[in-house]
Amino acid sequence: MLWSYPRSITGHGTRKTLEFLKQINSELTIHSFPTGMQVFDWEIPEEWNIHGGYLKHESGRIFADFNETPLHVLGYSAPYHNVLSREELIPHIFTQPDQPDVIPYVTSYYRNRWGFCLSENLKQALPDGNYEVCIDAEKKAGQLLLADMLIPGQRAEEIFFSTYICHPAMANNELSGIALATALALYVKEKHPTPHYSYRFVFSPETIGAIAYLSENLRILQQNMACGFVLSCVGDERAYSHIQSRFGDSLADKALEAALLGQENVTTYSFLERGSDERQYCSPGVDLPVCGFCRSKYGEYPEYHTSADNFDVVSARGLEGSYEVVCSIVDAFEIGLYPRAAVLCEPQLGKRNLYPTLSQKGAYGDTKTRLNVFAYSDGRHSLFDIAKIIGKPLRTVLGEVRTLIKHGLLSAHHVPCQRGALRIGGSGGSSENLI
Amino acid sequence: MLWSYPRSITGHGTRKTLEFLKQINSELTIHSFPTGMQVFDWEIPEEWNIHGGYLKHESGRIFADFNETPLHVLGYSAPYHNVLSREELIPHIFTQPDQPDVIPYVTSYYRNRWGFCLSENLKQALPDGNYEVCIDAEKKAGQLLLADMLIPGQRAEEIFFSTYICHPAMANNELSGIALATALALYVKEKHPTPHYSYRFVFSPETIGAIAYLSENLRILQQNMACGFVLSCVGDERAYSHIQSRFGDSLADKALEAALLGQENVTTYSFLERGSDERQYCSPGVDLPVCGFCRSKYGEYPEYHTSADNFDVVSARGLEGSYEVVCSIVDAFEIGLYPRAAVLCEPQLGKRNLYPTLSQKGAYGDTKTRLNVFAYSDGRHSLFDIAKIIGKPLRTVLGEVRTLIKHGLLSAHHVPCQRGALRIGGSGGSSENLI
Amino acid sequence: MLWSYPRSITGHGTRKTLEFLKQINSELTIHSFPTGMQVFDWEIPEEWNIHGGYLKHESGRIFADFNETPLHVLGYSAPYHNVLSREELIPHIFTQPDQPDVIPYVTSYYRNRWGFCLSENLKQALPDGNYEVCIDAEKKAGQLLLADMLIPGQRAEEIFFSTYICHPAMANNELSGIALATALALYVKEKHPTPHYSYRFVFSPETIGAIAYLSENLRILQQNMACGFVLSCVGDERAYSHIQSRFGDSLADKALEAALLGQENVTTYSFLERGSDERQYCSPGVDLPVCGFCRSKYGEYPEYHTSADNFDVVSARGLEGSYEVVCSIVDAFEIGLYPRAAVLCEPQLGKRNLYPTLSQKGAYGDTKTRLNVFAYSDGRHSLFDIAKIIGKPLRTVLGEVRTLIKHGLLSAHHVPCQRGALRIGGSGGSSENLI
Repeated sequence: MLWSYPRSITGHGTRKTLEFLKQINSELTIHSFPTGMQVFDWEIPEEWNIHGGYLKHESGRIFADFNETPLHVLGYSAPYHNVLSREELIPHIFTQPDQPDVIPYVTSYYRNRWGFCLSENLKQALPDGNYEVCIDAEKKAGQLLLADMLIPGQRAEEIFFSTYICHPAMANNELSGIALATALALYVKEKHPTPHYSYRFVFSPETIGAIAYLSENLRILQQNMACGFVLSCVGDERAYSHIQSRFGDSLADKALEAALLGQENVTTYSFLERGSDERQYCSPGVDLPVCGFCRSKYGEYPEYHTSADNFDVVSARGLEGSYEVVCSIVDAFEIGLYPRAAVLCEPQLGKRNLYPTLSQKGAYGDTKTRLNVFAYSDGRHSLFDIAKIIGKPLRTVLGEVRTLIKHGLLSAHHVPCQRGALRIGGSGGSSENLI
Repeated sequence: MLWSYPRSITGHGTRKTLEFLKQINSELTIHSFPTGMQVFDWEIPEEWNIHGGYLKHESGRIFADFNETPLHVLGYSAPYHNVLSREELIPHIFTQPDQPDVIPYVTSYYRNRWGFCLSENLKQALPDGNYEVCIDAEKKAGQLLLADMLIPGQRAEEIFFSTYICHPAMANNELSGIALATALALYVKEKHPTPHYSYRFVFSPETIGAIAYLSENLRILQQNMACGFVLSCVGDERAYSHIQSRFGDSLADKALEAALLGQENVTTYSFLERGSDERQYCSPGVDLPVCGFCRSKYGEYPEYHTSADNFDVVSARGLEGSYEVVCSIVDAFEIGLYPRAAVLCEPQLGKRNLYPTLSQKGAYGDTKTRLNVFAYSDGRHSLFDIAKIIGKPLRTVLGEVRTLIKHGLLSAHHVPCQRGALRIGGSGGSSENLI
Repeated sequence: MLWSYPRSITGHGTRKTLEFLKQINSELTIHSFPTGMQVFDWEIPEEWNIHGGYLKHESGRIFADFNETPLHVLGYSAPYHNVLSREELIPHIFTQPDQPDVIPYVTSYYRNRWGFCLSENLKQALPDGNYEVCIDAEKKAGQLLLADMLIPGQRAEEIFFSTYICHPAMANNELSGIALATALALYVKEKHPTPHYSYRFVFSPETIGAIAYLSENLRILQQNMACGFVLSCVGDERAYSHIQSRFGDSLADKALEAALLGQENVTTYSFLERGSDERQYCSPGVDLPVCGFCRSKYGEYPEYHTSADNFDVVSARGLEGSYEVVCSIVDAFEIGLYPRAAVLCEPQLGKRNLYPTLSQKGAYGDTKTRLNVFAYSDGRHSLFDIAKIIGKPLRTVLGEVRTLIKHGLLSAHHVPCQRGALRIGGSGGSSENLI
């Protein structure tokens, strides 16, 4: 269903997408920004609506049809209807020469152009003669839409998830992010009906949407965000990717690092390799504790931004892997991020059947993890820190913490988070000057 | 002599061991904890006294005899006297199947069991028929004993050494630690009769003894301990081992790291590989600046916790190596841990015959170490830091410091130590809640 | 011209050198320190003036002549005139046996000796017979000279450059440093006629000169120095070398590290491998933020401190490479060391023709550096930090910063520098006690 909506940064495809999501999570609120509105250094563009488009040779053969895939028309293409020679047409044909079989995803949001996107092979095969070119689109003053939802918790501190809704007819980038964020919101509401933390989900067009959202919500996000994640390309099975925040030291980075411990094929990318909305959330003066989470990172898998990014790339198992990662982060916050030993010295685990009662070398095995979790539960180290220190997956640590809490050996505290990259003093001062 | 005392965490073997040590260091004070006393999460167990034990086949052949080695009887075995078939006996026989020649050291302090420890080979050779089983032991309300001694210095700040006294008939683990601590106490009294620092030595049963000791001395240790060391398995020649404190950054860690510089075959183990009483001293809320020191680390050499841990493992040369390490740490504290340059700019070493007077390339050699020690003597870096920075053994640094002090070029200061892992504020608050 | 002046730590060769430099930079001020004056742990030696010297065999053959090269006479040699046998002469002949072709540079400033320096080959070829030895020198109460110049800026904070003037007849060590410092002073005056920072240049005899200079200027340098560099051996093309300050973390270290990014054959040496006046500037209690800059480091190239260190070693291209490095550091300070974003979120570079307007994968290339410079321009990171973080040469970063400032997207601030190694509190207290 969502596959067929012709999304872009504005227009009816995006509008329908948000309405569909609101049916699933009714708390979703849609916000609109009018054309021409200044959002920081940017201006909301005209709204673009497209109804069809085709490229027809004089022989009657159709070489591109928007109804076949919206990728065939250059994103934000100007309307156009004319008959042109092959020579006149060629400069308006966009291809990916290094992948001659696929139709690339190309856009021109801020400079007025018209064009079609074809496979390089098809472009090479275009016969001489005249072509009827038709792009049935309109650009005019309108709205840019985005949506957010807040699941309020006992604390104002919030965990933030952002994904984008501007990519048409591609599965990993970016139906997968929309699916994951939607499922995660349902998880929070079901598993943690009265959560300690607040949870915010943002669905917005990439770049301009995030900038627009920040232009209206910067203060509240700076005040409340404990950590945040940009979810993108989270549906394939090939890898796990962590795109670090600007300094790689935010609570979000620590959370994601811990949640990915024990997974195979994890790659950590520095902020220099960023590419999605962490670019905005981590920009100087904004300084939110946000990192990016992908399976195969955008730009790093061959199908990225082409017609090949379809449901052969994304799988249920791929999405489930991502789902477990983000759910474990939510669970860590809800258990209490800073566990603290409730007894001094090691607890006597033996009398609680949590440790062997016979002492002989080589006999301790799994109980070491339990004692290690306890040993670092000093109220100063988060569950993410502990996972990293003891080198065990966050899920394993959460299991041991639950056991130790059940036996009265740990208490888990909800204290204000050490957010890392967010430096209210400095950034507050600087954004004050800038707004 | 000490070899023959049947030590355990309680009982007459341990009592005799402490009385013997008191003859050497008369300042030793023996402390007792009654059965049933709560020490943090633990309870002092019944006192166990054993007088003999044997396993006799109906043929008259004796397969295990306590008088041959106390390891033959399961530590803390319940008293038992009966005649059993081989089948009935087998579940009570403990062996180390991966080392079929040796008798393992096995205990069951907190669950009532009876049993014998045999080599796997002997177990396999047990003939059919009936066996007379006799364990002449008793468990009843009594005392757990441990001892400490304090050599008071001009400062209340103390250097702490802890070793354990509960292992019967094994040489490296753990007569070696007892020997080293005893010799070191004599060294301090002889070499530093009016020491700047105070020195504390603790001889206690492992785990329960350290916990009992902490239950009565936590505050004073948190106030005064500059650094501390658990001495264990310090008698062989094969390696030097450093088991880090919980975060590996305490003054004790720095001291031991510096003292081991220049030695071969040094291994640093993280706290995750801990196994002795640093488990208690570094536990959350206790947070003492303690690390572990071994030659071959417990659990890492094949004779560990078996009848093979005898005087073939431990040598005078092995013990001397350990002795030099701990003595150099004591000397560093007593010289003054934070040396400070007494002149600005480099000193003119040449006029003091400490440097070549002819300047030609390649002619400086050893004097570089002297100038390097001076260059980092800024009153902010300890002798341990300096050794690490310039990459020279602590002993070498101490030699240069003595020379520079003699020539009036350095002064060495006794300032309160930067203890590292001990965070009085945080841990004080937390232990307050816990006690 | 400068080549021919017979420099040493005192005497007419040094005096003429400074007078020559004053003709180029008229602000240069010459300071004198009388023989016998105490400067910290040192005493200003007698002034040494040499007019000639030769070693003549009874056959009439001259084996060494000061007029041929001043290296032939031991630096600071006592006057001597006598006839000696070969056997009597030999202990006064200094050679470099591992480089038998060259005349080594040897001095004996603080112990009275006389001697000649020959190639090892020539020494081996000295025939039997008598030699007339003549060293026409004098040592007597006089002056040690050095010079400094300050280009005052709008801020008292100063950038400091020090080089030395005591080496005779060697090109890389040390005419190159004199040449570079002189050229840099001209650059500052021409390119930044009203500079933000102050610039200080010191030309002094190595070791004793730096110590004498510090003895009179320590307070002002500690107050004002933002960063400083010892320039030495900066004329060859083989390498770039950074000799770190005492802890390697001063602003000077960061500046030089950034300026050398992107150069080939860069070596960073720790302070343990120091050898020039950073030894004094970084000594404990002095603690100035100074590091050393060389092309091939002294002691690391074969011609060092020999007659082979001539204009075959030094080239215009080698000097230019050094000149670009130090000029880029000056430019970074003058642009404003701490750039700060002038807009929140990413700027829209497309509308300024600073970014492609067509969005397709793989199309961004060079603009990434521009966005990366912007992303780290948070007012907290210096241009040196930014160069290091994004892994681009300082020159490249400066270019992007100029572009972004021109478009109103960045402002660059002159705030007090974070000097790193200079810790006024600690070192001030300690030098107070010491002076």
